[in-house]
Amino acid sequence: MTKYIQINADISNIPYGDRKKILDAAQKQKDLADLVSGNPDMPMPQFLRERLKEAVDAGYARYTNYYGLPELRQRVSERLAAQRGIIADPDKELLITIGVQEALYVVMRSVLHPGDEVLIPSPHYANYYMNTLACGAKPVLVQLHEENGFVPDIEQLEEAITPKTRALVFCNPNNPLGVVWPREVLEKLAGLAQAHDLLVLVDEIYRDFTYTDQPPSIGSLPGMAERTFTFGGFSKSYMMMGLRVGYVVGPAEPMFHVKNLHYCIALCPPSLGQVAALAALDCPQEVLDELHKEFRERIQLLYQSVTTIPRVTCVKPQGAFYIFPNMKRFGLTSMDLAIQLIEKAGVSTLPGTEFGPYGEGHLRLSVCAKREQLEKGIARLLEFAKKSG
Amino acid sequence: MTKYIQINADISNIPYGDRKKILDAAQKQKDLADLVSGNPDMPMPQFLRERLKEAVDAGYARYTNYYGLPELRQRVSERLAAQRGIIADPDKELLITIGVQEALYVVMRSVLHPGDEVLIPSPHYANYYMNTLACGAKPVLVQLHEENGFVPDIEQLEEAITPKTRALVFCNPNNPLGVVWPREVLEKLAGLAQAHDLLVLVDEIYRDFTYTDQPPSIGSLPGMAERTFTFGGFSKSYMMMGLRVGYVVGPAEPMFHVKNLHYCIALCPPSLGQVAALAALDCPQEVLDELHKEFRERIQLLYQSVTTIPRVTCVKPQGAFYIFPNMKRFGLTSMDLAIQLIEKAGVSTLPGTEFGPYGEGHLRLSVCAKREQLEKGIARLLEFAKKSG
Repeated sequence: MTKYIQINADISNIPYGDRKKILDAAQKQKDLADLVSGNPDMPMPQFLRERLKEAVDAGYARYTNYYGLPELRQRVSERLAAQRGIIADPDKELLITIGVQEALYVVMRSVLHPGDEVLIPSPHYANYYMNTLACGAKPVLVQLHEENGFVPDIEQLEEAITPKTRALVFCNPNNPLGVVWPREVLEKLAGLAQAHDLLVLVDEIYRDFTYTDQPPSIGSLPGMAERTFTFGGFSKSYMMMGLRVGYVVGPAEPMFHVKNLHYCIALCPPSLGQVAALAALDCPQEVLDELHKEFRERIQLLYQSVTTIPRVTCVKPQGAFYIFPNMKRFGLTSMDLAIQLIEKAGVSTLPGTEFGPYGEGHLRLSVCAKREQLEKGIARLLEFAKKSG
Repeated sequence: MTKYIQINADISNIPYGDRKKILDAAQKQKDLADLVSGNPDMPMPQFLRERLKEAVDAGYARYTNYYGLPELRQRVSERLAAQRGIIADPDKELLITIGVQEALYVVMRSVLHPGDEVLIPSPHYANYYMNTLACGAKPVLVQLHEENGFVPDIEQLEEAITPKTRALVFCNPNNPLGVVWPREVLEKLAGLAQAHDLLVLVDEIYRDFTYTDQPPSIGSLPGMAERTFTFGGFSKSYMMMGLRVGYVVGPAEPMFHVKNLHYCIALCPPSLGQVAALAALDCPQEVLDELHKEFRERIQLLYQSVTTIPRVTCVKPQGAFYIFPNMKRFGLTSMDLAIQLIEKAGVSTLPGTEFGPYGEGHLRLSVCAKREQLEKGIARLLEFAKKSG
């Protein structure tokens, strides 16, 4: 007999999501309208597919450069300079990764130390929390308030800072909240980071889906390049989630080590994903505009419908694929409400608590399913509300 | 000014390979014959390409199941049972990964603890060493001797065991050595692991390229399933290295945590890579046989040619894409010899020291370049030897 295989405590501390309860409830229902998924049910643009087929016809699927095709790094660098004012050396400050997910991990594992504290404005994307624990560091959730439009309160953030605070992690536009933090908030966050010598990790995967004025990228603000890691990718903008290509930009010295850890973990990013990413950079803007318009319309429809329910409040959607309405009027926990919606109304949603305890009382509703699913889901949600009185 | 961003010591301790010196020397040469690459210059089988094009035409590239398509897990499980006698529950004991590289990382990071010692028979694939350091553990290199045919000496391994020894990591067939450890060696290793309660991590990525009798998979030996993680993939067998799909099988309890870390790092494996992997499982055996035959012939040619050089010795190749000849007769370090070969002979090779200090005096020669490159490389190597007297 082998002794019990003792798992490294950093890793065994990573919680599994509660999503299983939802999935189990969902499995028993035959006809469910999907307001749950963050995985758009939409094909890649034809433009990308043509390029992919050419690459497949050429026949080769060899390892690429460990850190991503030089041409891809060069072009991402150029685009970041042009669109976000972020200046990054494509060899030393930019890495192509297995989506934002890998990028976040390799950066956090490289710059965090056991016991470091990481500020996470919350409700938050679960990965920021999980990765912090995976690095033996301590996530410090700082509540975002619905009444403030889920924009961070700088004083409250500052109060959470201790000598051990090392980094601030957030996404803009925000998953799950659907909000976009504007320039003045980012400037205050930049000031805070500089005053307390914090690193800033900003996930901009949803940036192409901003429905308000486009705010600056925090890494482009004065004094921020040296302390900011900016994460982005092609998954959401070009419906190529499964191809697993993202990137991160950061200061050269830490990126030297981040790149080496990336090599250990990934060897190289997927070759066909990189082909699609290069195609995405050539893709006519109209294609992107059309996707943008589609999601903007869907999110407006969802928001306008849900806010017709008496005593349901919801911060106006400004970006990404989600809204995060306050459903406390139903008098249930988020989890119980989500399960009732599956069982009694035939609509699947995510409890806000999937995004941390400050999500209690809320649901995350998404617009990633096909439009008819979305419409059916909305109708069922409204019907359920009507019955609940 | 930000303070210096202090890198986590586990990560800053990971060495970068010395390959840069080789690459720098190589960049100055216009006409180089490639005996260096582990990245076969060969297209994917047509069978896989057709399936990939169908998948691209279908148009979707959504996130897949986090742990790999259920059908792929099921079929890999069936194949492992049929071909290696490894019984693995496709939901609880098997994970689809971003190649063996990610699989090794997520397992090592989950089961190793700071200060643990990891036995690595050496010369070794650099990643085993790098990953051990990345986990804050200590790599313990145990020398493999050319005069033993690079088969491990069990007594010598046993002497290296301390109370902190936790795992043994090796690959079979072996990169860089080109040898295959037979059943009797694996049985002794299994006995050693059980006697000292060690985990065994075995990388079988080159298993389809075994040119001797196929040895068992160590995880299939009695008492080994509960302590063995078996790593494999499709990259080498089907020329789909860049598609980044591998897998790992291990005991359910640790795999539960390994899967969660995998989610944090990768979210899901690449969708098109998984399409190709499913196609690979349907691919006619003749296709594999042809590739196998091609590499077998190439490696024989390389071996027979190199061993005509007086006072060059080489263990007979039994698997993988490499030979690891002893080049001490040239009176140079491996690195100096490799650089001289680039500069004076127009042939690129890897110094044995890329695979640890016990590789000194050897070169790793590969057969991954096109056949005419291989033949040119061999001719130049022989010419260089002749001139050196």
